[in-house]
Amino acid sequence: MTEPVNLQKTLNSFNELWSPRIVTQFNDYDVRVAKFHGEYVWHSHLDTDELFIVVAGRLTIHLRESGVERSVALQQGEVYVVPRGIEHKPESDAESHILMIEPTGTLTVGDTHDKIPDYVDATTGHHVD
Amino acid sequence: MTEPVNLQKTLNSFNELWSPRIVTQFNDYDVRVAKFHGEYVWHSHLDTDELFIVVAGRLTIHLRESGVERSVALQQGEVYVVPRGIEHKPESDAESHILMIEPTGTLTVGDTHDKIPDYVDATTGHHVD
Repeated sequence: MTEPVNLQKTLNSFNELWSPRIVTQFNDYDVRVAKFHGEYVWHSHLDTDELFIVVAGRLTIHLRESGVERSVALQQGEVYVVPRGIEHKPESDAESHILMIEPTGTLTVGDTHDKIPDYVDATTGHHVD
Repeated sequence: MTEPVNLQKTLNSFNELWSPRIVTQFNDYDVRVAKFHGEYVWHSHLDTDELFIVVAGRLTIHLRESGVERSVALQQGEVYVVPRGIEHKPESDAESHILMIEPTGTLTVGDTHDKIPDYVDATTGHHVD
């Protein structure tokens, strides 16, 4: 018998940037929340789309689509899906709280990526204590 | 090339209760938003879990688990997963805005359900114009 989870409470439970916490799971998917600030690393997930929802703050997602680079800008309460295989780089110019949904086991840095900076946590998400 | 979707804009585009709109899709899943007010119908989805997030307002989900009935109460910003096969009945005592994620094609009233009241839209979700 499970109980509801409060997103803000989960977000209050950690400070690390770019280090998703698993809020809950359904079917074979994770609901994850993370704190973003600054630039992430270019990467792509070859076998899965990735859903982003901005819980607080704002998020730019840089995309490389068919060799063309563009960016989408998301405000609080906005949703975007990065299609599988599309290289992308999230960036937030202020600390922002992002909800992501993707298959359990999906690595934050994807299947292909640029050199991973020290501040990036390459993980499949952390369970909350 | 897709663009971000604003949840509030989608919610502003319709008034019907219990009638989900498809915000976006990822892999073989829908992100849906709906307006709840009053009592829904008892039902269950046999083959899929169902994720609920309260965007605005509040939501009670009545559950029948192993013959025992209980309720979970969700406030804004709270998340709950109804496991597959579990009979449930959502209820909101004020108009509330709910985000749901479930496989594309999932019927709102599930695979088993009580008699469907006239005010319930039995649908796999409506695409937004």
